[in-house]
Amino acid sequence: MKLKAKLLKIQAGGKNIAILDENTASSLGIHSSDRVKISYKNNHVVAIVNMATSFPRGSIGLYEETSGKLGTENGEDVEVEFAALPESLHFVQAKIRNERLRENEIESIIKDVVERHLSDIELSAFLTALYIHGLSMDEIEALSKSMVKTGATLELGRKPILDKHGIGGIPGDKTSILVVPIIAAAGFTIPKTSSRAVTSPAGTADRVETLCPVDLSVAEIREVVEETNGCMAWGGALELAPADDIFINIEYPLAIDPMLLPSIMSKKKAIGATHIVIDIPTGRGAKIKTIGEGQALAADFIDLGKRLEMNIQCAITFGEQPLGNAVGPALEAREALSAIQGNGPSDLREKAAALAGILLEMAGKENGKQMAQELLKSGRAEKKLREIIQAQGGDPDVKPEDIGVGNERSEIFADKDGEVLWVSNENVAKIAKEAGAPKDKGAGMLLKVKLGDHVKQGQALFEILAERNAKLESAARLADKLQPVGLSKRPEDRMLIERIPTPVIHRKTFVLER
Amino acid sequence: MKLKAKLLKIQAGGKNIAILDENTASSLGIHSSDRVKISYKNNHVVAIVNMATSFPRGSIGLYEETSGKLGTENGEDVEVEFAALPESLHFVQAKIRNERLRENEIESIIKDVVERHLSDIELSAFLTALYIHGLSMDEIEALSKSMVKTGATLELGRKPILDKHGIGGIPGDKTSILVVPIIAAAGFTIPKTSSRAVTSPAGTADRVETLCPVDLSVAEIREVVEETNGCMAWGGALELAPADDIFINIEYPLAIDPMLLPSIMSKKKAIGATHIVIDIPTGRGAKIKTIGEGQALAADFIDLGKRLEMNIQCAITFGEQPLGNAVGPALEAREALSAIQGNGPSDLREKAAALAGILLEMAGKENGKQMAQELLKSGRAEKKLREIIQAQGGDPDVKPEDIGVGNERSEIFADKDGEVLWVSNENVAKIAKEAGAPKDKGAGMLLKVKLGDHVKQGQALFEILAERNAKLESAARLADKLQPVGLSKRPEDRMLIERIPTPVIHRKTFVLER
Repeated sequence: MKLKAKLLKIQAGGKNIAILDENTASSLGIHSSDRVKISYKNNHVVAIVNMATSFPRGSIGLYEETSGKLGTENGEDVEVEFAALPESLHFVQAKIRNERLRENEIESIIKDVVERHLSDIELSAFLTALYIHGLSMDEIEALSKSMVKTGATLELGRKPILDKHGIGGIPGDKTSILVVPIIAAAGFTIPKTSSRAVTSPAGTADRVETLCPVDLSVAEIREVVEETNGCMAWGGALELAPADDIFINIEYPLAIDPMLLPSIMSKKKAIGATHIVIDIPTGRGAKIKTIGEGQALAADFIDLGKRLEMNIQCAITFGEQPLGNAVGPALEAREALSAIQGNGPSDLREKAAALAGILLEMAGKENGKQMAQELLKSGRAEKKLREIIQAQGGDPDVKPEDIGVGNERSEIFADKDGEVLWVSNENVAKIAKEAGAPKDKGAGMLLKVKLGDHVKQGQALFEILAERNAKLESAARLADKLQPVGLSKRPEDRMLIERIPTPVIHRKTFVLER
Repeated sequence: MKLKAKLLKIQAGGKNIAILDENTASSLGIHSSDRVKISYKNNHVVAIVNMATSFPRGSIGLYEETSGKLGTENGEDVEVEFAALPESLHFVQAKIRNERLRENEIESIIKDVVERHLSDIELSAFLTALYIHGLSMDEIEALSKSMVKTGATLELGRKPILDKHGIGGIPGDKTSILVVPIIAAAGFTIPKTSSRAVTSPAGTADRVETLCPVDLSVAEIREVVEETNGCMAWGGALELAPADDIFINIEYPLAIDPMLLPSIMSKKKAIGATHIVIDIPTGRGAKIKTIGEGQALAADFIDLGKRLEMNIQCAITFGEQPLGNAVGPALEAREALSAIQGNGPSDLREKAAALAGILLEMAGKENGKQMAQELLKSGRAEKKLREIIQAQGGDPDVKPEDIGVGNERSEIFADKDGEVLWVSNENVAKIAKEAGAPKDKGAGMLLKVKLGDHVKQGQALFEILAERNAKLESAARLADKLQPVGLSKRPEDRMLIERIPTPVIHRKTFVLER
């Protein structure tokens, strides 16, 4: 059927969408989500049909992605015909029915995800089905491989390539800013890519960005790594596993994360990593609640590593409270810089040395943790961090106090004597976000006390920092409500942990960082 | 934050969508699927954010739905701020995690579905989760009630109101065209609304449309029913349960149908039905495969009926083959008209009398089936059908041969002697659709033999009718491949039913008619 092209002059976010009014669609025998093949001269595009209620009859609306590929102008005739559903949609339907998918079927899905042949409706159903039914290790392997195959890769021509990844879930985890320079200073290659925050108050890319640019191209990463052995780049624009960026946008409103393993491991494979330490913070307010759960996840990472020919070790780490004292991009970068200079909180230095130590031992060194500690103490790790900052275009002489943080500040004090019984990861993250993090880089929270500390009435528990007064006030109000730091003289005096139903039900905190 | 309104001059199919470029969204701290509150003068709209890759910075793209509600012009400044996720989304997330939803939670979801506060991604996840986890009868009841509450209702001021519904799944089921006039001729009220085909070669609305207009308003239905006791209207534009129309568009590409019960029953409740017979065709190629499955579904219908204060009886009917001989809108209308005149296939007349009989007995009559048969035989049912056709604006004197059917015809002949062992519902539907049904109203199939018939080599098995030769040829090729009519001298000579894997895997035929 001949229809008039109506160019919409906007992009559809990469999606292949064509708009038809209901009557025109019906006379083509087409329902919403059906596909049409649109032809103009020798160009053909298959697009997914969206229905509009009052779109002009006999017209087809084309977003820029589609009109560009067709080379058509506004008002020209295009030939439109019904196109069969993509084969991958039948595999998505099979997964909804809990069938096991084979490697070629998963590859067909991922290819169509990247080429935008599957709609948001179909992807949402696929991810929901994966979340509910779970994935077999064969499916996880096939997803990982397909995601590598459909993305860019980094070829450094070096071996081994070391890497470190934290699965997230506790605020203030700035370990990577110490681990990368330690490993690079030891002479090993570590081309670290990180993400920005999705649901947390800061991602590693947000933190590092207050020290130097992070938006590097693949070519720039290669340059920085050749010069310094390491880098701390934002992975988002590298297209290392572009399917994952599409998945994250779907998972975010649903608060589900079925692609954790393939997402992380495909990106590691894409940068050519050979030896990786995976940090699994474990604690009540963390993404992974119990050590048993952490061990099960670790076994999956290690199994998947073997299937993808990567050497994996996992670190189950203490995650009952935030790491260090600082939460928020600039505050955390400050703290990391202090720590690499030998100051800053001891839990951060200890964790960084432990993880770097594992990596060094995986790469053949002995007494890895001791070696990492010496690289910290000798100043060689700090020197390496400054080299990397310079190579990425930042100021190599930056001092912690140069990093700007919020001027609006409010301290919260203890209303009684007691011991710190808990510091809630969830609530600290909520308050830091309410203060403006990660968007306002200088916003966040500084913990003045940690688990087990003895506190006197009137002593400061934490400080909230914000860039704007309104945000500070709203974060302070939230802090007052959430009471993120729990005090008691003895645990026996405070037996009630939670009352159910709480005033707000069904709102589980969701961490989508990987 | 102030942004410039950029009016997109098209509708988004009723959806509340705002478009932001990635950088502007990031500076608002907003991810794709987040909500923004847009304010202009004293008007406020909450819209779901879609990301565009190259949309002008500092602008917000507004579809007509949104710009209309705001009353803003192109290029004007609007105030845009982050808005919290709707509460119903937390309930959707809870359902994904397999929590049981309470009535007020389901009502909140359905309200937000109708008001378009939930995105396609979120609805898709909700329906997928319902499909996989299943629904409790409490949830089904709450969904049904909420769907009635958010839609239009028909108030006839009469009692009882009878109705008949077939859950679909076998081609050629034109029973309603006989049942409605029988019931109306008996003096009972039956305001029947039907749907058009979604995945089948004909829906009741498609069939009736070849006899008279079906696109009636609520007021027109009231007029027709007051005049004739019955009607046969298209339900689509009546907004009886508008949430369901939104759900169907999501379910269609996913080939899932979790809303079968609430969808059917909410529409029956909305027209005020008090006594309903539900037809559950049962057979290998039907939607319901076994009698046990049919009984379980019947129990659910009856239970739900009690909860909604409607008297329900179910009829498990023989669904191993298409009903009657004709498949396709016009061919079926012809056959129904013949049957009500006393001709046509006996299975159709028998089924119509049986179902009408149940309804008559539910309404207090004795020997319902006999009464129905007498109304058929006496011509009173035919007379009533012609009254309804006239009241809806059709020709009351229409003869079967007046209804136009496809001129392109091709007969398929038996290549051997044998008994008809099966007539595949699925394959008959596929061939009729390939011939052009339901879009081409005159297209379809005429079966010349039915189950158990003895066939001689060279005898016609069926005929394909199409409006265009290309369609006829492609349907004939498909018929040759699918062999919808299975012949054998004795069952023992044909033991292999299916070979697995078949050339095409994972393609289950899906029936979305309700």
